[in-house]
Amino acid sequence: MKVGILTGGGDCPGLNAVIRGAVRVIGNAGGEVIGLQRGWRGAIDGIGTPLTLENTADILWKGGTILGSSRTNPYKNPDDVKKLLASYERLGLDALIAIGGDDTLGVANKLYNDHKLNTIGCPKTIDNDLSCTDVTFGFDTSINICMESIDRLRTTAESHQRIIVVETMGRHAGWIACEAGMAGSADYILVPEIKVDIEAMCNVLKKRREAGKMWGIVVASEGAVIAPEEGYVTSNAKVDDFGHVSLGGVGELVASIIEKRTGIETRHVILGHLQRGGTPSAYDRVLGTRLGVGAGRLVIAKKFGRMVALQGTSIVDVALQDAVGKLKTLDPAFYQDAAEFFTV
Amino acid sequence: MKVGILTGGGDCPGLNAVIRGAVRVIGNAGGEVIGLQRGWRGAIDGIGTPLTLENTADILWKGGTILGSSRTNPYKNPDDVKKLLASYERLGLDALIAIGGDDTLGVANKLYNDHKLNTIGCPKTIDNDLSCTDVTFGFDTSINICMESIDRLRTTAESHQRIIVVETMGRHAGWIACEAGMAGSADYILVPEIKVDIEAMCNVLKKRREAGKMWGIVVASEGAVIAPEEGYVTSNAKVDDFGHVSLGGVGELVASIIEKRTGIETRHVILGHLQRGGTPSAYDRVLGTRLGVGAGRLVIAKKFGRMVALQGTSIVDVALQDAVGKLKTLDPAFYQDAAEFFTV
Amino acid sequence: MKVGILTGGGDCPGLNAVIRGAVRVIGNAGGEVIGLQRGWRGAIDGIGTPLTLENTADILWKGGTILGSSRTNPYKNPDDVKKLLASYERLGLDALIAIGGDDTLGVANKLYNDHKLNTIGCPKTIDNDLSCTDVTFGFDTSINICMESIDRLRTTAESHQRIIVVETMGRHAGWIACEAGMAGSADYILVPEIKVDIEAMCNVLKKRREAGKMWGIVVASEGAVIAPEEGYVTSNAKVDDFGHVSLGGVGELVASIIEKRTGIETRHVILGHLQRGGTPSAYDRVLGTRLGVGAGRLVIAKKFGRMVALQGTSIVDVALQDAVGKLKTLDPAFYQDAAEFFTV
Amino acid sequence: MKVGILTGGGDCPGLNAVIRGAVRVIGNAGGEVIGLQRGWRGAIDGIGTPLTLENTADILWKGGTILGSSRTNPYKNPDDVKKLLASYERLGLDALIAIGGDDTLGVANKLYNDHKLNTIGCPKTIDNDLSCTDVTFGFDTSINICMESIDRLRTTAESHQRIIVVETMGRHAGWIACEAGMAGSADYILVPEIKVDIEAMCNVLKKRREAGKMWGIVVASEGAVIAPEEGYVTSNAKVDDFGHVSLGGVGELVASIIEKRTGIETRHVILGHLQRGGTPSAYDRVLGTRLGVGAGRLVIAKKFGRMVALQGTSIVDVALQDAVGKLKTLDPAFYQDAAEFFTV
Repeated sequence: MKVGILTGGGDCPGLNAVIRGAVRVIGNAGGEVIGLQRGWRGAIDGIGTPLTLENTADILWKGGTILGSSRTNPYKNPDDVKKLLASYERLGLDALIAIGGDDTLGVANKLYNDHKLNTIGCPKTIDNDLSCTDVTFGFDTSINICMESIDRLRTTAESHQRIIVVETMGRHAGWIACEAGMAGSADYILVPEIKVDIEAMCNVLKKRREAGKMWGIVVASEGAVIAPEEGYVTSNAKVDDFGHVSLGGVGELVASIIEKRTGIETRHVILGHLQRGGTPSAYDRVLGTRLGVGAGRLVIAKKFGRMVALQGTSIVDVALQDAVGKLKTLDPAFYQDAAEFFTV
Repeated sequence: MKVGILTGGGDCPGLNAVIRGAVRVIGNAGGEVIGLQRGWRGAIDGIGTPLTLENTADILWKGGTILGSSRTNPYKNPDDVKKLLASYERLGLDALIAIGGDDTLGVANKLYNDHKLNTIGCPKTIDNDLSCTDVTFGFDTSINICMESIDRLRTTAESHQRIIVVETMGRHAGWIACEAGMAGSADYILVPEIKVDIEAMCNVLKKRREAGKMWGIVVASEGAVIAPEEGYVTSNAKVDDFGHVSLGGVGELVASIIEKRTGIETRHVILGHLQRGGTPSAYDRVLGTRLGVGAGRLVIAKKFGRMVALQGTSIVDVALQDAVGKLKTLDPAFYQDAAEFFTV
Repeated sequence: MKVGILTGGGDCPGLNAVIRGAVRVIGNAGGEVIGLQRGWRGAIDGIGTPLTLENTADILWKGGTILGSSRTNPYKNPDDVKKLLASYERLGLDALIAIGGDDTLGVANKLYNDHKLNTIGCPKTIDNDLSCTDVTFGFDTSINICMESIDRLRTTAESHQRIIVVETMGRHAGWIACEAGMAGSADYILVPEIKVDIEAMCNVLKKRREAGKMWGIVVASEGAVIAPEEGYVTSNAKVDDFGHVSLGGVGELVASIIEKRTGIETRHVILGHLQRGGTPSAYDRVLGTRLGVGAGRLVIAKKFGRMVALQGTSIVDVALQDAVGKLKTLDPAFYQDAAEFFTV
Repeated sequence: MKVGILTGGGDCPGLNAVIRGAVRVIGNAGGEVIGLQRGWRGAIDGIGTPLTLENTADILWKGGTILGSSRTNPYKNPDDVKKLLASYERLGLDALIAIGGDDTLGVANKLYNDHKLNTIGCPKTIDNDLSCTDVTFGFDTSINICMESIDRLRTTAESHQRIIVVETMGRHAGWIACEAGMAGSADYILVPEIKVDIEAMCNVLKKRREAGKMWGIVVASEGAVIAPEEGYVTSNAKVDDFGHVSLGGVGELVASIIEKRTGIETRHVILGHLQRGGTPSAYDRVLGTRLGVGAGRLVIAKKFGRMVALQGTSIVDVALQDAVGKLKTLDPAFYQDAAEFFTV
């Protein structure tokens, strides 16, 4: 049994835990694993190196992916699918584990449907917005980094009687902003799924000040949709055809709006790449390991076209077909819990 | 509406998140909260202080419990139950939220059953071994502390070509040892639920050495049951009537057995109280907050005799009756995942 | 004995350690301490609250300053100096401890020289660029935050084969960039004191790539002086009269230059306020405590017009006059040590 | 130029920084470095592997030593010195850098004096008790680990109204206990250099309780000398000929004495190996790197029989002869600063 494995899309703490888990289970069963370099790029080009117990022994605590990653999608170029099938043949692969987000898993699903390729998927997104799994690995590390950052920013906000707007990742889903904001005791949280109410936010911040709390923390998803108001200058904000600021610049824009509306000195911080790198938390090492072990077992059981997933406390498998193409947006009940704290 | 709240048993990171969440929700609904000091002790004596948005504003990130705790159980002294009922009356309480483990929750359940007291339970145990909830808060912080300790110990083990045995909490359940061991890349894990196989463990450690890996990490629950072998000296180990070492000294005993059987220099570290103190992880702050919010809402909805719980990604409520008196031991499938790594 | 204490300028981890140390020593000697709010603002307005062993017991581990801060300088308005002297009189102060940077200490020095006010200074700057003291508190916490950030960014840079430019604080001195870069294994470091050699930097990054190291980390002080090249777009960069980009935007500018010159995908991260908040490191808690104790002892010994300082391993005192007005820039020998690593 | 390098004695965070620094400087100058395995053991046996820019590129952030260590001392066996000299010859070494504590450096000094071997020393001890250098690397990481542990233990002590005794490393010197205790806001600190006053300690703890502070933290060096009182049971304590408990068991003994004398529930925690492992702090990475660079430059300058050291903010070199054989014990002034806090 010879199994290819690849990691696609943005990097995420826990990817190496998945790789190590799959290598171990397949190795224990007498199989071989080939690491394909840089996502689907490596699968197309057939560039891979053997992964062994030895060379995956010390990677559990390492952030990112030892395989590298890319956003290459073989379906964007018909020749690439052919090349991929030929490389799969040439390398003598019996199965292929694809660890990635909706795009990567969509390719795995199509290859299974169109070409009966023995693909297995493992869900990966730092944003926690993939369907059919309760949580994705990397997310927990990310919210811990955000929370620690907010913990740090709180004391500086307090000392200088400022508001600080913290911009987190989350283009389409507010999971990171909502959980990090809840963990960091944010005074207001802006997410893509909930219509932003600038006035309500400013009222909370002003009431805090009236009550003697001279500082505040606002957490905003990068994907929160703000209708720009006249006279606010932002450097990176991209305004879409509908006049909404959709990606980039949300933190800066929100800070300038708050400062203008409330008269309170306001700063913004963009956490950016800090949120996705570095050693995984215990949760992510455990989840990644269990998903890797689960993916390896699916290969051994020849259950292809499936994706490993976390449901409750169990690792289960679902059809790739059912998992791809749908975003798991923030549960409104969750935001409602956080909103209990948007008061003085 | 006037609601008492108390924390019983061992402290746990996230207790203050629960308190703050309940205070906020009940406050938002116009109610008052009275913090009872030191668990059931304070409920018996009727010693409490008002908890407000103000005095719970800065406690989310603080370990332990601002209410103090104790192991007092009013059912151990019939007078105490009477006193408790009188204090409840005198303080003018409409409901009582009890945050604690099986013992604390058992009291809440009996008070509800026997005296129709309006109790609400919130599950708390660092050991993660309570029923009806997928995870308990504090557990995640604990396994992160253990994992970081193992990460530190690994480099010293490697530099000195030693084995280090790490003793974790877990008297009756191996959740901490198993997850911390998995996260820390342990070479062997000993838990109370799985019969300890000393020979298998020593074989793994010897094979590692033969393969050039001159060091090793073993994680052992304090409650792992070891049949002591002749000639091993331990200082704290308590041997029960069946000749088993049940509590205390497991780490030291296992280290001495390994050293004698394998001839490899072996040290042990007891993480002890380090595992339960300090600022909670993001996961525990979020879970604690949501449980506190949930408990507050149960009070508002007058759903008494219930316990808040996490099931999947949702906060639900279950009958206290169903939750108490049963231990949630380690899922054997989970241990099986960890055991995939007990090889060279 | 009644002693005023204030904190001026930007906040810094360790300020509360100084406050607590001074309060303890003066309290042990039977004196009283009055905390003046928001730097010289509070001294002018005579707004202060008593600081006691009790209300400073739990502040050692807290970032920022419990006294608040401001950039108010009484010498900018002649009336303010008069008001300050009157407030000092009215509050019945015997001495005044001013914790702050060059600006704050300069005021303390002038008040001592011009009005024989019993001032004591304690040096504070996150940038480590004050004279007469080997190190300033807050700096160690800051370089640890930067280093941890670089550790995180390295794995994402590696996974995506990118260069990441990390912009640190340091307007006039490169201490943070140089020590954080050395601690974070930076491949190149840009500081204000050393003429930036863009070509040398790009050569190092290209050579790394040729040697198979497909990623890189560059650390740049915000005050590093870059001569902008044609066609590079930056959003925040301020170009001075000499055509130099002096403050703001250095990270972005450097990233765009690298990408254009080398063709390697490059990102930038601005650590900003993250570097100055949060709980102090052990070094800063110890240094802050010792400086606070030292400042308290100077008051008791009536050695006014002096500043506490660290020299070698000892807390000493120097004349405020000698300490202010001179920047302690980065030791070129230190940069030379770091530059040994600007190779493949 | 071919240079051997070795690490002796207990491991310490920052050892790999020294190795990497020396390899880089010597490599930049066109020289070669041979890593000798396991301290003087490897020098005797002539077992070494080439260290290159490549294989030392990713070790800066790793705890322990990639070279392994041992306590082998060639002067304990006359043949070993001969073998060492022969191995030095056979490997074609031009110089030898020995990184270690008093024992390791003493050997380097003797080899230089007795055999004109071109040795260079680099001071290493986690205890910070080596002469001629202001600070040793590893110490800063250690006190941060201790401080974080105390921060965690404080909340559990507070919740349960207990005293917790934290036993730190420090056989002969109280630097770790004193600085960690100061950073952790300890209520009392016991060190080897200062005669332990049990009664004074218990008075502080009782007065705290009377003042409503129902908990306390005591930090004790493992080498603090306690005269055991009748009836206290300790499991590991070794009582010397003078009736003093010198090594092992100090924490447990102190806890039992406090509990008996004050009647306050008391627990103890032994930090043990946790204090010496894991990734180094920024301070230790910088200090280690600069010492490694400095050692490499001494080799290039052919200044043998010297040791690199930190004095003030500079890396200097001193005669090995002057550095070995003298312990740098805790500065009493430092303990006096800490003692200001041994009050309510």
